[in-house]
Amino acid sequence: MMDCALNISSILRRAARVYPEQQIVSRLNDGSIHRYTYTDFCGRVIRLMNALRQLGVEPGDRIGTFAWNSYHHLELYYAVPAVGAILHTINIRQFSDIRAATINHAQDKLIFVDRSLANSLAEISDSIPCVQLFVAMDDLGPAPESTPQPFVQYEELLSTAPETTCFADDDERSAACLCYTSGTTGEPKGVLYSHRSVYLHAMGSCMADSFGLSERSVILPVVPMFHVNAWGLPYAALLTGARLVLPGSHTVGRPLADLMATEKVTFSAGVPTVWTLLIQHLRQHHHDLSSLNTVIVGGSALPVSLIKDYKRDYDVDLIQVWGMTETSPIGTVSRVKTGLASLDADQQLQIRGTQGLPVPGVEIRICDDDGFELPWDGETSGDLQVRGPWVASSYYGETADQSAFTNDGWFKTGDVATVSHLGYMQITDRQKDLIKSRGEWISSVALENAVVAHPDVLEAAVVSRLDDLRGEAPVVFIVLRDPGTPVKPGDVLDLLRQSFERWQIPRPSDVHTIEALPKTGVGKIDKKVLRRQLRSK
Amino acid sequence: MMDCALNISSILRRAARVYPEQQIVSRLNDGSIHRYTYTDFCGRVIRLMNALRQLGVEPGDRIGTFAWNSYHHLELYYAVPAVGAILHTINIRQFSDIRAATINHAQDKLIFVDRSLANSLAEISDSIPCVQLFVAMDDLGPAPESTPQPFVQYEELLSTAPETTCFADDDERSAACLCYTSGTTGEPKGVLYSHRSVYLHAMGSCMADSFGLSERSVILPVVPMFHVNAWGLPYAALLTGARLVLPGSHTVGRPLADLMATEKVTFSAGVPTVWTLLIQHLRQHHHDLSSLNTVIVGGSALPVSLIKDYKRDYDVDLIQVWGMTETSPIGTVSRVKTGLASLDADQQLQIRGTQGLPVPGVEIRICDDDGFELPWDGETSGDLQVRGPWVASSYYGETADQSAFTNDGWFKTGDVATVSHLGYMQITDRQKDLIKSRGEWISSVALENAVVAHPDVLEAAVVSRLDDLRGEAPVVFIVLRDPGTPVKPGDVLDLLRQSFERWQIPRPSDVHTIEALPKTGVGKIDKKVLRRQLRSK
Repeated sequence: MMDCALNISSILRRAARVYPEQQIVSRLNDGSIHRYTYTDFCGRVIRLMNALRQLGVEPGDRIGTFAWNSYHHLELYYAVPAVGAILHTINIRQFSDIRAATINHAQDKLIFVDRSLANSLAEISDSIPCVQLFVAMDDLGPAPESTPQPFVQYEELLSTAPETTCFADDDERSAACLCYTSGTTGEPKGVLYSHRSVYLHAMGSCMADSFGLSERSVILPVVPMFHVNAWGLPYAALLTGARLVLPGSHTVGRPLADLMATEKVTFSAGVPTVWTLLIQHLRQHHHDLSSLNTVIVGGSALPVSLIKDYKRDYDVDLIQVWGMTETSPIGTVSRVKTGLASLDADQQLQIRGTQGLPVPGVEIRICDDDGFELPWDGETSGDLQVRGPWVASSYYGETADQSAFTNDGWFKTGDVATVSHLGYMQITDRQKDLIKSRGEWISSVALENAVVAHPDVLEAAVVSRLDDLRGEAPVVFIVLRDPGTPVKPGDVLDLLRQSFERWQIPRPSDVHTIEALPKTGVGKIDKKVLRRQLRSK
Repeated sequence: MMDCALNISSILRRAARVYPEQQIVSRLNDGSIHRYTYTDFCGRVIRLMNALRQLGVEPGDRIGTFAWNSYHHLELYYAVPAVGAILHTINIRQFSDIRAATINHAQDKLIFVDRSLANSLAEISDSIPCVQLFVAMDDLGPAPESTPQPFVQYEELLSTAPETTCFADDDERSAACLCYTSGTTGEPKGVLYSHRSVYLHAMGSCMADSFGLSERSVILPVVPMFHVNAWGLPYAALLTGARLVLPGSHTVGRPLADLMATEKVTFSAGVPTVWTLLIQHLRQHHHDLSSLNTVIVGGSALPVSLIKDYKRDYDVDLIQVWGMTETSPIGTVSRVKTGLASLDADQQLQIRGTQGLPVPGVEIRICDDDGFELPWDGETSGDLQVRGPWVASSYYGETADQSAFTNDGWFKTGDVATVSHLGYMQITDRQKDLIKSRGEWISSVALENAVVAHPDVLEAAVVSRLDDLRGEAPVVFIVLRDPGTPVKPGDVLDLLRQSFERWQIPRPSDVHTIEALPKTGVGKIDKKVLRRQLRSK
């Protein structure tokens, strides 16, 4: 067989030749719409490749991006790996000291930045001496108050670059992209994706029981392009010839619903919070979302009540997925097997509330503390481990802690999970979020899911506090759906008593109503902040 | 990223763990149904692997199969590559001298044979000394009159083999399967598939705009498992967790329709003749084929009239695909892009009558005689060339003619094609089937397609004869739909005059009605036989 490399250039070539007429739509900072075809896109990517070469970019160099989801960012997604360099997508929502540490760890040579975000780089530009040049992309946002230096314009670079095509036939095992996990303690943990892993992840995620993408799909990634490559969607979309709709900074409420309606979006993806906020908006305002049929939800556990509400009110399937930065990220997808279609609606909902089945290419196992594999019986829980061609084999950098990678070739996720005999994986907790009470484990995730079922509760988080009697005790934080409709601690506990043992139930004084849950830069609940608040009480 | 091999063992492991309950259904020679689960299947594959090892099979050995589509054959599809050996699927429909030549070329060490087919090997067993052992699989067919020697029973081998699992982590670039092209002149041309190419072909063919397979699919491959790995379906089905229905020798008319109805088949695949014969049967007998929605048709050109009839009468989509033994085989798939949905029904049918768009992973180009690439304008025709990770880079064997492989890494298919600006490829002819009349080319395929549009014509073939005046002249052979309703040559020519130039129209004396078209072992029209008949007239 031919030794054809699975690389990002080949996705680009296919997109331009087989779907030249397909569109890429971007919403810019001022709300206006930018629209062009795959042909236009490919022409600009080729010029960008030549511009990068003219700037002295060499294979293996790290090139940073600091940007919203837009066509500029997409051009970089293809041009940087296509010249052999490594695309480092910097999280725009992290604290400036972490941002600087990440840039220094990656040793980014250039950074491409949306004009509206230039301030955030200007304030750290003295502490990131590795960066030789900043390139401003005009997202039609407000002009920055200050800019990092030296600072050049993206369109000027492109306008002077040649249009000659020269694709290197990149080795599929060479590095293409670099993402950092959102963990905020210790050294930043970077994950390097290869051309091969990006390509295979795109194929695997396109498959019918994964995302089921096709050229008929109109894909709107709400998940940011700095969050694990927007879950691979910018690559999967072009591999299948789908229309891509990039929302820029307009990722909540009315602007999001408007964009979905006018562009007839069929497929979207994002963390649970996005969909909780959107449905709140939709309950009060009409938008025609009849084209939308599938929403992939990951990043943290998806409440089954939300699955139910979207299906009932909007005929939209919320599909839970599980993955990590280390898994590119798609590991499992939760769909009800045909053989289970005879179960009643509630039972099917329970299945959709699990993290689902491993996608083709990914293998999972659960292990005890000594590394022995545990049975798939739906009850025994153990450390979730994963392997596959798009799973990391190490963290980036010489000094990184590699203890999460086993000697026999698996990655220890840090999640605790059960797997049913039909292959459905369910995360019962993060190892570090388990609560050990009277010597027994309590699952904070299970408590959270139960609390969120209360009709007046919008979101919930459970952490542990030290307790003289029990060792650790669970503490519940709730956010109200409507601040005018308070929820009594007793009501929460009554709800929990329906499905938990007495010793697992929190005390009434351990149920707190707060205005909002602290979130990380990618929208996950930040339990570290909650624990800090508890200790300072 | 982890260095996980894309190999056949990993498809098997996934099938057994994620879809243990899924079924594999086989119709045996006596008409009875055999049914077991992926779990049962995997258990037997593991015992077969151990049996092969006990028989002394070593990595790289060629193991022949001579069998219908059934669970025995499927077990070999997985066990042989999983022990590092090479599965050689021998065509059961070829002449015995070609069969012997192929077995000797492959140097098969063992051959697994359906009991009902043992006679055919007994008659050549003296001329294939490389084969050390024949293994009989009980397909519940009639006992053979004679058997090749030595001859052992499949189930006896399995019953004494250990159940211990030992998967070698096969290098993805090592050979897994071997198929020979159906060309019947010169040395047999073998194509060696690697684990990687089989795996990627399975992923590529599962994608939504290729075959669109999922665990909801119920797949019946009419295409034989000795014909380019049944177009990869035995691997694609288990990769996605689909139900597989194997029809054995029951591949026409009532038995086929019965099996499709009782097993609620959703997806099937085979050459045009299968579907022409099936619709004739369906017009006279009722079967409930309401579950069937997609049929993949390849091997030779699919008449648009058949696409139209199946859609109108049975709501079944006949999808034309193009490929070759050398392309594993899927190269292009013909579906109407969303953007073309506003075209009228006839225009859409014209698009579906092309060979379609290259699937993800496959690249195509058309070239002139000097190897320069030609434009994709839908008019310019040239030599169709193809490349991709599941396209052959050479023929098997030291003495094989490798002139079809270009220096810059493409395979010259021998087809002549146009490609439209939207990427639709249309075969206008085989290079050797083009007719050169008065110095201009006439497409035999275009003439055939036009003749088949006649309501009383079932099938048609066009070849050339030498002509003093024109150089070459087209000759039409037709098969009547109903022998009681003859078709006059003049009617055929009237039909052709609607879309062809005067000089392209055959003479009335060059239109012949025959009882049946000669076919090759895999169901393609054998034009060599027609030319021979012409010369002897």
